[in-house]
Amino acid sequence: MSKTDYDKILVINSGSSSLKFMLFSMEHETMIAKGLVERIGTDKPRLVYKPVGKEPLTKDVSAPTHGEALQHVCEVLVDPERGVLKSLSEVGAIGHRVLHGGEAITKPVLCSEEVKNIIRACIPLGPLHNPANLAGIEACEKICPGTPNVAVFDTQFHTTMPRYAYLYAIPMKYYTEDKIRKYGFHGTSHNFVTHATAEFLKKPVEELNAIICHLGNGSSIAAVKNGKCFDTTMGLTPLQGLMMGTRCGDIDPAVCVFLGRKGLSPDEIDTLLNKKSGFYAMNGIASADMRDTIAAAESGNEDAKNAMLMFAHRVALYIGGYYTLIGGADAVVFTGGIGENSDEARQLIIERLNALGCFLDAEKNRATHGQVAVISTKESTLPAIVMPTNEELMIARETYRIVTQ
Amino acid sequence: MSKTDYDKILVINSGSSSLKFMLFSMEHETMIAKGLVERIGTDKPRLVYKPVGKEPLTKDVSAPTHGEALQHVCEVLVDPERGVLKSLSEVGAIGHRVLHGGEAITKPVLCSEEVKNIIRACIPLGPLHNPANLAGIEACEKICPGTPNVAVFDTQFHTTMPRYAYLYAIPMKYYTEDKIRKYGFHGTSHNFVTHATAEFLKKPVEELNAIICHLGNGSSIAAVKNGKCFDTTMGLTPLQGLMMGTRCGDIDPAVCVFLGRKGLSPDEIDTLLNKKSGFYAMNGIASADMRDTIAAAESGNEDAKNAMLMFAHRVALYIGGYYTLIGGADAVVFTGGIGENSDEARQLIIERLNALGCFLDAEKNRATHGQVAVISTKESTLPAIVMPTNEELMIARETYRIVTQ
Repeated sequence: MSKTDYDKILVINSGSSSLKFMLFSMEHETMIAKGLVERIGTDKPRLVYKPVGKEPLTKDVSAPTHGEALQHVCEVLVDPERGVLKSLSEVGAIGHRVLHGGEAITKPVLCSEEVKNIIRACIPLGPLHNPANLAGIEACEKICPGTPNVAVFDTQFHTTMPRYAYLYAIPMKYYTEDKIRKYGFHGTSHNFVTHATAEFLKKPVEELNAIICHLGNGSSIAAVKNGKCFDTTMGLTPLQGLMMGTRCGDIDPAVCVFLGRKGLSPDEIDTLLNKKSGFYAMNGIASADMRDTIAAAESGNEDAKNAMLMFAHRVALYIGGYYTLIGGADAVVFTGGIGENSDEARQLIIERLNALGCFLDAEKNRATHGQVAVISTKESTLPAIVMPTNEELMIARETYRIVTQ
Repeated sequence: MSKTDYDKILVINSGSSSLKFMLFSMEHETMIAKGLVERIGTDKPRLVYKPVGKEPLTKDVSAPTHGEALQHVCEVLVDPERGVLKSLSEVGAIGHRVLHGGEAITKPVLCSEEVKNIIRACIPLGPLHNPANLAGIEACEKICPGTPNVAVFDTQFHTTMPRYAYLYAIPMKYYTEDKIRKYGFHGTSHNFVTHATAEFLKKPVEELNAIICHLGNGSSIAAVKNGKCFDTTMGLTPLQGLMMGTRCGDIDPAVCVFLGRKGLSPDEIDTLLNKKSGFYAMNGIASADMRDTIAAAESGNEDAKNAMLMFAHRVALYIGGYYTLIGGADAVVFTGGIGENSDEARQLIIERLNALGCFLDAEKNRATHGQVAVISTKESTLPAIVMPTNEELMIARETYRIVTQ
């Protein structure tokens, strides 16, 4: 087969009750179609389909499992009217977002039985995501037999962390027997933005030192040293590190002990800290959304103001810490829903970075939403850059690379 | 009464099974005698007494409670042969180290009934220390009636933290109803070292920006902005933040959930993370002592080497973070048993601070153990200073100030 045979890459992000997809042509890295099936396994599944240059479509479907959901996606992609492919055989390979590869997988891989067994073995580390990711892969194997499936892992970019960064200082048996350690997440985004930043700065990626702030409903920062992840804020799970939409981020572990003594079960503590904390708990309006928080803060809500300051304080803490640990940086980079779009959040953060030589260009910052831009002043020795992420394209690139190499 | 009537200040640090004391003459801030009663409430209590310029004494005593222990201390202080006082009435005031003052107490105070009630109310926040601290105060009230007792709180220095630094991003009711927040500890040490550093740098303390690293068996860092605590690594309890002798420091809160699901009770998790973690868990030699860890690392033990790197990595993370948050610093300051004495630990940390303009003077560092010294090179824009702490003197000073003001 030639490279053109692999030009069309389908990217699948399979969640517990949804299956998102994006179809790329790799010749010019253009997105051809995207969409999702949501509410899989409920009584009201729905297909949303957006082909580029053609009429979009939203319709109720029957999708008791990911298999039926994928079937609908495949049908609409080759639909005579709205389709973007003549035949499914045009799809050269399918790239899958997989949450957790544990320590065993350090790069994107073809989905062999062995790889699927590893994804299965990591279910205790990613109890919600890994089964859904696996269901997506197995659906593709069944419906598109012969098309290679590639797994791209959220943890993969962080496997370069040194041992002293990823180990927790708890009895070693929890690492050796139960694999409890820092893994880090958002790896595909951090990886994409690392490469995009190197290109933007016209630097070889292996010479890039940067602090990548992926700020969204879930948020994490990666310390990138010589193009590789040196440390990151998320941990065993996405709960550690920054304050997020509904996650608490860093707390005294003794808070968990306190909650346990109050009578909360481990599952209740898990739900409390993952689903009922963060902005949702702090901003006085019970919303996980930063836009709502900012609006409330602007209308004088003191809790919302304080929540924004908490967020900025903690982001700046890690930016300064990582800047130090990687020996200085070429840039601090903002990405993700908040990082790309919230000039208010970026302003609060960058105002705290003056000691690192990073000064806000207020006008550029206010004008930047979702596009690449330098938002620090010319005098800044540490530039602040907004760099939109594109996890799906990164997965498509990795998939294309693997099947054509 | 005149100031001279208060010249002799007794400092009491009352733990669950020990009562440490130090007697000062405040005219020249000289220590006259020190010692402790240990194993209180056991069948083998022991008095250790070290008067300056006289023979020390160690003897078995009977001390079922802190009351009897204090009685022995009072007797030996006025002993015709080894004593340093003619009469107990020479003691102008007694200063007590108290762990937890919650939010109610922001400065040292005379021990009124109201203050004792606050210390009692904070027992849930300091379940081991506060009852012992209270026992020490009550023993003094009984045995030295009429002598003023002053309480100096470990949390007090940190009460200047802004709300956005001390709140955890968990449901607000845990703060409003249960007072769950970051408090910080080692406050008396951070306070002493802040003042000593300002004096050393010939700066008014209210203009001092510094990062104070109190590194010992327990370790914490304080970000000091304009002479006041702006943030600190310890939290609700001393468990949060840095890796310590037997404490884990920062972990993903999900690790606690994992341990709970494994069947560990909250008390067992508490013990595991506070007593069986940290260096003890990581250095491969089951010792909580950094000297042992360094010796093992030097003899080639890879776990011990890694434990030292974990420690240094995390200390440097917070130094960089706090440097950034306080807008640059006049100095990074090392104190506490490790901070004052371990040139190996300081070297590993300072080697990670070059991006902040702090460079190690290896020779000065190796020569500095327990004395004031600058251990960074002259070219450093961020000087590194070793500054011995003296919590007992700080308590004596605060006590003297209160009774003479």
